[in-house]
Amino acid sequence: MRATTLHAPFDVRLEQVPEPTVEGPGDAVVRVVASCICGSDLWPYRGDPAPQKPRRMGHEFLGVVEATGDEVTGVRTGDLVIAPFLWSDGTCDYCVRDLQTSCRHGGGFGGTDEQGRLVDGGQGEYVRVPQAGGTLVPVPGGSEIDQSWIPALLALSDVMGTGHHAALAARVGPGSTVAVVGDGAVGLCAVLAARRLGAERVIAMSRHESRQELAVRFGATDVVAERGEAGAKAVSELLGGIGADSVLECVGTKASMEQALETVRDGGAVGYVGVPHGVEFPARRLFSRNVAVGGGVAPARAYLPELLDDVLAGRLDPGPVFDVELPLDEVAEGYRAMHERRAVKVLLRP
Amino acid sequence: MRATTLHAPFDVRLEQVPEPTVEGPGDAVVRVVASCICGSDLWPYRGDPAPQKPRRMGHEFLGVVEATGDEVTGVRTGDLVIAPFLWSDGTCDYCVRDLQTSCRHGGGFGGTDEQGRLVDGGQGEYVRVPQAGGTLVPVPGGSEIDQSWIPALLALSDVMGTGHHAALAARVGPGSTVAVVGDGAVGLCAVLAARRLGAERVIAMSRHESRQELAVRFGATDVVAERGEAGAKAVSELLGGIGADSVLECVGTKASMEQALETVRDGGAVGYVGVPHGVEFPARRLFSRNVAVGGGVAPARAYLPELLDDVLAGRLDPGPVFDVELPLDEVAEGYRAMHERRAVKVLLRP
Repeated sequence: MRATTLHAPFDVRLEQVPEPTVEGPGDAVVRVVASCICGSDLWPYRGDPAPQKPRRMGHEFLGVVEATGDEVTGVRTGDLVIAPFLWSDGTCDYCVRDLQTSCRHGGGFGGTDEQGRLVDGGQGEYVRVPQAGGTLVPVPGGSEIDQSWIPALLALSDVMGTGHHAALAARVGPGSTVAVVGDGAVGLCAVLAARRLGAERVIAMSRHESRQELAVRFGATDVVAERGEAGAKAVSELLGGIGADSVLECVGTKASMEQALETVRDGGAVGYVGVPHGVEFPARRLFSRNVAVGGGVAPARAYLPELLDDVLAGRLDPGPVFDVELPLDEVAEGYRAMHERRAVKVLLRP
Repeated sequence: MRATTLHAPFDVRLEQVPEPTVEGPGDAVVRVVASCICGSDLWPYRGDPAPQKPRRMGHEFLGVVEATGDEVTGVRTGDLVIAPFLWSDGTCDYCVRDLQTSCRHGGGFGGTDEQGRLVDGGQGEYVRVPQAGGTLVPVPGGSEIDQSWIPALLALSDVMGTGHHAALAARVGPGSTVAVVGDGAVGLCAVLAARRLGAERVIAMSRHESRQELAVRFGATDVVAERGEAGAKAVSELLGGIGADSVLECVGTKASMEQALETVRDGGAVGYVGVPHGVEFPARRLFSRNVAVGGGVAPARAYLPELLDDVLAGRLDPGPVFDVELPLDEVAEGYRAMHERRAVKVLLRP
């Protein structure tokens, strides 16, 4: 089969690799219907860190179950399933607390399982999914799903759940004032999530016209183009002289976190979901201002059923975050387009 | 009148100073009935930082209103009042959000007001309180209060509200598992607060027998004497192999925060209320474990009415945190006793 492999910075290739099979009783093999490129894929693509050896890529996908091991429950051959971006057993003490990202027997796509065997990445034709019963979420009536639903469903694999996680971590609720730092796919989904949770004001911080427009389409009430202190000041002016109750930090750099900390009001909360790169939390400043910080790797699996219900009911549509669709053969162009910010998020079809 | 002044590290004196009067329309003058020494007073007492010039001490007191300015509402001459440890106007955008610690026109006892005039400390005979209407909380039926209630009421000035703040910041609720780092007055009040909020398990981390006993009296279900990693391991063993949902960090040192971060489970929260000294928050580690951190200077004013109700109804008694009572004349001995950990918290009577 064909699968995406990162060999070196900016050297991503579609290669012929062995087709996966069921190797353990908890495995399923999924034929990928759609997958995509994540903002976090760009870190190793840009060499931070550079791969020590060729590395399978992709952790967001949906597809059809082709085969299952003897112990798999909850998913069956022929099901259309969404994979959250980490696999998890669904039964350990963390999974039962809905924190599948800390699963005692879980891991990531493109890595290895507990037996040290390769687990395929999502940017390929087939994926062997360990702990399939705990991981995969079937789409009700999946075999009849219209193709136009695919982007919205695929977004539940990571970015929509991650935006939701940022909003929960920043304690967004009815009436909240919210600022979103970052206008990538996660930031845009965070706008959707904040509105869905009842936020009264959602201020998208973005300098890019097309992304500003999408943010407004997703429910942003205001857009602020300024960054850093000037951005924080603009938010405060919009809110009558006080910072935002909740700031959703969806980038992960030192500058974006600093902007978030400037923008939140005293007593507010910053929810952060961008993998931190050089991020610092100044304890004294947080303490004197009573600013809380929370977030982390989103347990997309926990949020999938609830968000899926809303998508299928027509109440939620994160699909438009995919602004470029390419055949899997052109995956390298997909990485370039996202790296150069020509695309918000690229959907790939094998 | 007599008032406590810190001249240099370990040089605290009771001195004759001018008796305060009403200087502005929002002022009240309070005759102190009881005050106390705070763990945070020990930082400058120990020279961290050393006072640049003699500094009035004390920020926790209750007393009787002797005089009020023309614009004071809500408190009257003769009222027994509790002062939260910061004064605040009660009307600004932060005060209406119950974050009086960020009041736009507030400040601290022993400092200066907006006009640059000295505001007395609590460890003296009288205190001029700016923004008295926004700050002071009258005790219903105060003139008839039995003397035995004084310690419990005085604890609402700071430590009980601060313990409660730690518990809220760490998201303690019904059924929570909780560990408390720090067995000073705030840590002990945090035990009380966690139980009051419905925690199922409250593990006091303490090596001192008398403090362990008080923690158990306050509702701790378990005591762990080990510190650092060994302490975290002991907590995890008590909880069936997983860390605590909520950790209340009531010290403020690098080591105590590290212990808190080791002790909390993935997906849990650390509430911290000790003034941070060298504390660090490792962003990557918090991120991968989804550990939230929150807290800061407790808005004791916000919590006072609710906690006061519970004290007066006999449902809450933080009074036993005062294990030594001294006349104000012996304030220097009070500091020594707390510095040497011979006392948990010293109550002073003028």
